[in-house]
Amino acid sequence: MLKRYLPILAWLPHYNRRLCGADLLAGLIVTIMVIPQSLAYALLAGLPAVVGLYASILPLAAYALLGTSRTLAVGPVAIIALMTGAALSGVAPPGSPAYLEAALVLSLLSGAMLAVMGVLRMGFFANFLSHPVIGGFLSASGLLIAISQLSHLLGVDASGYTAFALLTSLSRHLPTLHWPTLAVGAGSLMFLVAVRRWGQPALRAIGLPRGLAALIARAGPVFAVIATTALSAWLDLAEHGVAVVGTIPGGLPPLTLPGFDGPLWRQLLVPALLISVVGFVESISMAQMLAAKRRERISPNQELIGLGGANLLAAVSGGMPVTGGLSRTVINFESGARTPMAGLFAALGIGLVTLALTPLLAHLPVATLAATITVAILTLVDVPLIRRTWRYSRSDFSAMALTMALTLGEGVEAGIIGGVLLSIMLFLYRTSRPHSAVVGRIPGTEHFRSVTRHDTETVSHLALLRIDESLYFANARYLEDTLYALVASRPELEHVVLICSAVNLIDASALESLDAINARLKDSRVTLHLAEVKGPVMDQLKKSSFLDDLAGRVFLSTYSAWSELSRPSS
Amino acid sequence: MLKRYLPILAWLPHYNRRLCGADLLAGLIVTIMVIPQSLAYALLAGLPAVVGLYASILPLAAYALLGTSRTLAVGPVAIIALMTGAALSGVAPPGSPAYLEAALVLSLLSGAMLAVMGVLRMGFFANFLSHPVIGGFLSASGLLIAISQLSHLLGVDASGYTAFALLTSLSRHLPTLHWPTLAVGAGSLMFLVAVRRWGQPALRAIGLPRGLAALIARAGPVFAVIATTALSAWLDLAEHGVAVVGTIPGGLPPLTLPGFDGPLWRQLLVPALLISVVGFVESISMAQMLAAKRRERISPNQELIGLGGANLLAAVSGGMPVTGGLSRTVINFESGARTPMAGLFAALGIGLVTLALTPLLAHLPVATLAATITVAILTLVDVPLIRRTWRYSRSDFSAMALTMALTLGEGVEAGIIGGVLLSIMLFLYRTSRPHSAVVGRIPGTEHFRSVTRHDTETVSHLALLRIDESLYFANARYLEDTLYALVASRPELEHVVLICSAVNLIDASALESLDAINARLKDSRVTLHLAEVKGPVMDQLKKSSFLDDLAGRVFLSTYSAWSELSRPSS
Repeated sequence: MLKRYLPILAWLPHYNRRLCGADLLAGLIVTIMVIPQSLAYALLAGLPAVVGLYASILPLAAYALLGTSRTLAVGPVAIIALMTGAALSGVAPPGSPAYLEAALVLSLLSGAMLAVMGVLRMGFFANFLSHPVIGGFLSASGLLIAISQLSHLLGVDASGYTAFALLTSLSRHLPTLHWPTLAVGAGSLMFLVAVRRWGQPALRAIGLPRGLAALIARAGPVFAVIATTALSAWLDLAEHGVAVVGTIPGGLPPLTLPGFDGPLWRQLLVPALLISVVGFVESISMAQMLAAKRRERISPNQELIGLGGANLLAAVSGGMPVTGGLSRTVINFESGARTPMAGLFAALGIGLVTLALTPLLAHLPVATLAATITVAILTLVDVPLIRRTWRYSRSDFSAMALTMALTLGEGVEAGIIGGVLLSIMLFLYRTSRPHSAVVGRIPGTEHFRSVTRHDTETVSHLALLRIDESLYFANARYLEDTLYALVASRPELEHVVLICSAVNLIDASALESLDAINARLKDSRVTLHLAEVKGPVMDQLKKSSFLDDLAGRVFLSTYSAWSELSRPSS
Repeated sequence: MLKRYLPILAWLPHYNRRLCGADLLAGLIVTIMVIPQSLAYALLAGLPAVVGLYASILPLAAYALLGTSRTLAVGPVAIIALMTGAALSGVAPPGSPAYLEAALVLSLLSGAMLAVMGVLRMGFFANFLSHPVIGGFLSASGLLIAISQLSHLLGVDASGYTAFALLTSLSRHLPTLHWPTLAVGAGSLMFLVAVRRWGQPALRAIGLPRGLAALIARAGPVFAVIATTALSAWLDLAEHGVAVVGTIPGGLPPLTLPGFDGPLWRQLLVPALLISVVGFVESISMAQMLAAKRRERISPNQELIGLGGANLLAAVSGGMPVTGGLSRTVINFESGARTPMAGLFAALGIGLVTLALTPLLAHLPVATLAATITVAILTLVDVPLIRRTWRYSRSDFSAMALTMALTLGEGVEAGIIGGVLLSIMLFLYRTSRPHSAVVGRIPGTEHFRSVTRHDTETVSHLALLRIDESLYFANARYLEDTLYALVASRPELEHVVLICSAVNLIDASALESLDAINARLKDSRVTLHLAEVKGPVMDQLKKSSFLDDLAGRVFLSTYSAWSELSRPSS
């Protein structure tokens, strides 16, 4: 029991020096690698850069204690930062103390929601986000983030959380283009693209082993940060109008506790829910992928608790909403992390950096961070997925297209909500017309098949109708329509047998419909019977008066209904 | 084709004097009977009483031409009037010209939506309203309407569209109780209850035939209106402070055309949609019930067009949103209407009354109309249905309870939307954990059954998993969890066969999950195979690259998979 809620108890007793060595190295590498992105994603959310560091310390440690993935690394990620910025910009002016406070509230609410969902075992909630919706959302968000970074790369002012707002704001400010900033931004961008594309092959060509080559190639952002910070300090670029990160307060994360503010909390409820669900879906997909590589097990509900704990700790240590980050997790995994202890080491490392090394970051140009974000984020724009979905199913594609259009045009919340609602509606529509078939007897046997596809024996006063779907509210009315059409089209009909072999559920709506069908067929002097009703369905029907009111009988098999009813009535 | 959109062409050619006589009588009776309720429901919506008459003329005629039910009578109904009032009170002060104009806009929007849904064959939209939600909504609305009529019966001011607002307003104004109004109201109420309960048996006891007795008993409101109007005129009750209907402008309905007003239209979009869907569901249930009694056919999509036309005509003739009304339809049916011509006669009759007899209604006390509404509406409160749903299914009951609580506490729109969302979520939850079973071979046969329920033959390196549900976004993740758990629990596993005999659909989410499962199993050195994939599902899978990437094979039968894979691997 305790092991379920504290997965650390599963591996700590077997911890040894070999594991420790591997984890220590991975923790060190992660510490160095995640600093640029932590700073960048805080800026993306409109928060001071140091908040990104704060959010990478205690939350990372919390997940290491509570999460079930051995290698997942938690911290600020791009999509969540974008959603955070969009949510906060609605409640407070960026840069104000209220904005910072709201970020803590958002983390707190999101953490509480995740933890509660985990304890109540409500991980299924994430199922509402279908793959086409999440895929469309990630692609559109990637584009949106890339557009939002253009202003930092060009050194102009621009703000907004829709593609339209960003682009109009950008074009209005374009005349104020700042050439030195553009030089730093474009330089970093080209360097990062080059490293990403040719870094690994080049390093392997000069003889480095595959693992090390991959690792160094991944360190592109670190080199970019070091190089441009040095350049910026040397040329005093800030004096020449290049935006820099500026003085970051040193020291450990502050202890924060967001106060209760009813209206603010209510405004942030929906954003917090969406951030929770999107973060969870992203995180668990990654965790499952990595766990499968080592045949480990992920518990979705415990993952909710782990991510919930991480966000709650973000709220009390001056952070921002966090989740499992793709790049930091891959770095951790590929650096050879074996247990969550690697995460604890990384948390310690980032803590030390925050304590001691932040003064060095004062000259870091914002344009470098923008370039880092842009290069990382464009991998989210998944054109092959879009094309694949289009080819596979128009219905799924339409949910994806709506999500993308709304995300770009109306913002991240509208995108997700619209996409989820459409995909649910499309699914209900698909199941609202269940396959059904009028069946007849294969002569001389006890088998019954569709009359349209086989040569069957039928009698005009008896109809056998097989329904190939559970009966519930979305198709209850269709069932009525089908039966009334059947009865209206065959005036000589006296008996209808509903074959329920494929019916796993009859909900209250379908029950009302069956009641109505029974009564109305009686009015038309037709008797309704059932056949092959499954045990659990029968048990539930017994809780209603339907079986008492049923004009006809419940037959165990279609054949027994046939034997009984196919003889001409007296 | 023309016949489909103009059902009148189906019966008009065969029209004869006998049918005409029956229809004429029914039309006359309907004319007399529906006047009190038409006035009452207009007042319920906060509109002048005469609007209810206007809405009973052209809309009734439009439905008679376009609708597929032979006997449905269209006009103002209680629920729709309540929803109209709730919607309008949000956009304009009651009694103002803007309020009247908004009522027309609401009819126009609702008519346009219904007509468009009909032309696009989107009647399935109504399926989203499950029976428990609509049942809970009707019961709660009935209560809400009854509470709202208390103020008219007591002669005090009270307003609001939630139970809480109404009751607090009522209790605050209770000291201003007006005794003469209470006398009229309570008198009418007791009369109507007595007629409803004992009228028909009493009339039959004195020898009247069943049909006539029922008809006269139904005419209770007409007698109450005549008696209290006469009393009011005689004693000049208006002078003594009893609220009366007042001078109603005579003449035919005015020609109206609501102007376009963007913000107003946008505000009324959601209310119009809800009014359309609720009105449609109410109307079609009734139409199907009556059609079944005479083995006639209703076309749901043509019904949408008929109701759409009715509301569009309500918008241009000074009316309010309308739908098929229970009591006016039952009166029409029981008075012997045979074709929609009865509706045309009734429209003509109500037109004549509006033209000539409205001055007589000036003295009609509002309390009489309130009593009429109260008695009619309390039949909507369906306690047995609530009890039945509780007994049948807790899940369905919770959707019903939420609908009722929200309707009473937050208003009609919140009630419907909340109920619909909850019932959809509950359904998705139910199907998000499909039944699945690891199966084994019944020794010596080609049959495979669940290993937990039967003595079966299995081999440790092969797992056969049968999934009993279509695979879609709500259960895609569950499928992944199930398979990963299976693989993690059996370290010696080499092959997993997914038996798809019950899978009717694989959507893009489930496809991504299968892709992920295939890849991750490969990472765990386990091969995924499929078996018994249905034809249409196979066709769709061929549109993706899944079958090319699949590590294993697609077997036609479980047995062929078993024969191939159960031998120990080399």
